[in-house]
Amino acid sequence: MADIHKTQSWIGELPGKLRMIDQTRLPEKLVEIDCETVQQVWDAIKRLSVRGAPAIGVSAAYGTVIGMQGEMGLSRSDFNSKLTAVTNHLASSRPTAVNLFWALERMKKIAEETTLAEPAEVVTRLLAEARAIEFEDREMCAAIGQFGAELMPDDGGILTHCNAGGLATAGDGTALAVLFAAAEAGKQIHIFADETRPLLQGARLTSWECQQRNVPVTVICDSMAALVMREKKVHAVVTGADRIAANGDAANKVGTYSVAVLAKAHGIPFYVAAPSSTFDMSLASGNLIPIEERARDEISHGFGKQTVPDGVDVWNPAFDVTPAELIAGIITERGVISSVSTASVQAMIGSSRRH
Amino acid sequence: MADIHKTQSWIGELPGKLRMIDQTRLPEKLVEIDCETVQQVWDAIKRLSVRGAPAIGVSAAYGTVIGMQGEMGLSRSDFNSKLTAVTNHLASSRPTAVNLFWALERMKKIAEETTLAEPAEVVTRLLAEARAIEFEDREMCAAIGQFGAELMPDDGGILTHCNAGGLATAGDGTALAVLFAAAEAGKQIHIFADETRPLLQGARLTSWECQQRNVPVTVICDSMAALVMREKKVHAVVTGADRIAANGDAANKVGTYSVAVLAKAHGIPFYVAAPSSTFDMSLASGNLIPIEERARDEISHGFGKQTVPDGVDVWNPAFDVTPAELIAGIITERGVISSVSTASVQAMIGSSRRH
Repeated sequence: MADIHKTQSWIGELPGKLRMIDQTRLPEKLVEIDCETVQQVWDAIKRLSVRGAPAIGVSAAYGTVIGMQGEMGLSRSDFNSKLTAVTNHLASSRPTAVNLFWALERMKKIAEETTLAEPAEVVTRLLAEARAIEFEDREMCAAIGQFGAELMPDDGGILTHCNAGGLATAGDGTALAVLFAAAEAGKQIHIFADETRPLLQGARLTSWECQQRNVPVTVICDSMAALVMREKKVHAVVTGADRIAANGDAANKVGTYSVAVLAKAHGIPFYVAAPSSTFDMSLASGNLIPIEERARDEISHGFGKQTVPDGVDVWNPAFDVTPAELIAGIITERGVISSVSTASVQAMIGSSRRH
Repeated sequence: MADIHKTQSWIGELPGKLRMIDQTRLPEKLVEIDCETVQQVWDAIKRLSVRGAPAIGVSAAYGTVIGMQGEMGLSRSDFNSKLTAVTNHLASSRPTAVNLFWALERMKKIAEETTLAEPAEVVTRLLAEARAIEFEDREMCAAIGQFGAELMPDDGGILTHCNAGGLATAGDGTALAVLFAAAEAGKQIHIFADETRPLLQGARLTSWECQQRNVPVTVICDSMAALVMREKKVHAVVTGADRIAANGDAANKVGTYSVAVLAKAHGIPFYVAAPSSTFDMSLASGNLIPIEERARDEISHGFGKQTVPDGVDVWNPAFDVTPAELIAGIITERGVISSVSTASVQAMIGSSRRH
């Protein structure tokens, strides 16, 4: 799929532009948008045209190049100030996406490592770094897929929530990379995709990716996950994560916690698939992860039609936190963290990793 | 609320017609429709213009009157045949709604009790019976409200799923009657209404009824129920039921089972509010309750916009069954069944009740 419709790609050299699938238009239309200004990248992240922690990181890296490629004529000091402004602005587009900050830090570090270079050379290095982030992400997805596929049933149903697929990364995704790798290895799997209210990433995106890959998929409403588990149609659950604390508590799309509790109650293993860059070792536990609240109308007018009376209160948290004790394993590009705890996370990720 | 906008009412005497709120148009528009043929009543039940087990029973009873009021000139034998045809047709509109069969049985019994009467007299008796069903339903709601209100917290959050309110009955509802009675008794409650995919009865109808009653309400997506429980915003859950087996297993709108499992995991009591007519004592357990599957497009094109790619499989069960062990109590018009089991159900409902 990633080869057929690339989630995002850098067009040209310098100056270049960032082309991406507008994921808010799927599954009705495959629309690509070209970002040629920092504000266009910021808007695309904000309105979820690009979403998923790794893909946001890649977008922000290329967004930094877009912001700086027209500034080669500046003095180095003014160039540095501009770089700070560009990265600060991009960092404000999605406050919970730790990969966003991680990618921007890598870009800033390039400037710090080249204090004697001319702006033109720094921009060349920035583009190389953005490409490296994209390439590493692709490799990361492949590794997660291989480690995770071994944990999947040889023949059975797998439930996933939201979209942690190729559309969320530069490669094959995180949770979906596991499923795609399992299918490629010949396992007879059937995917159950929670539609994932309010923005329906599961219905719109996960099912679309499975269809592109010819992996059997059934879309259900979020409220039906318990029923498919009770009917023994599901043998494993795999989701992505947007941020993972040092003890393994994982923040992900709202509803993930619900699925994890339901999986536990039905004796089904619940796995999180996420790259090591998703860990924020500065947070001791998930209680410290801030939960973004999103706009009322995503729920009240989500389908283009009013579904909640005027004046009625709506609560729209974007994420929830699944505590480590509900997680059977965290599948990273370095291997699988089992018996999830501060010690096992530290053994895999390292204690000093900060973003 | 029921006094302001009556869910359904019989207009005129004989011949008369059934006026009802078209609930598929809420909350955007308050539209009333007049049914003057059996087919119009059948369609209204089928397309969920009227929904909720008790309200469907009342509609079917008046629907029977509508079907027979033009047949007073028939021989008694032909009249009886026509009555059978009318009630059989109405029974096919919603195969899981046990109140539908129960109400139609009451109507047929009138004919059986008046074998020597002229058709005109039988029609008069049928109308009286339909009105009795409506009146009893109103009384039933009030009794459920009183019994249930005592179980509610003096100050706290209560989560409900789907709409078991005045719109679902001739009176104040079942689950919502409990909440409205608690609020009227001065309890400081806050309602969390699951939006209830796919048809959003919670977002559209429950929140509308709470607003009409000035009871504070917050609409959430179904996938957020676990999170509001984890954040200790919810202290009790109350839902309706469409059919309850002899052991207390309860079928209700899909997602109810999910909420019950989540409530158990968070130590929150889960109550079912339903009239005794909802019990089907011929079914030993909930495993015997048939689950209606509804159309794909309720999920894939729920609100006029495509949200699932063409060709992707969708599963749309209308109901699920919550096992008795997850239910803290069943609130009926006769009292509360605690420690739900075949014995406690039988003690309250009686063993011979069949529909």
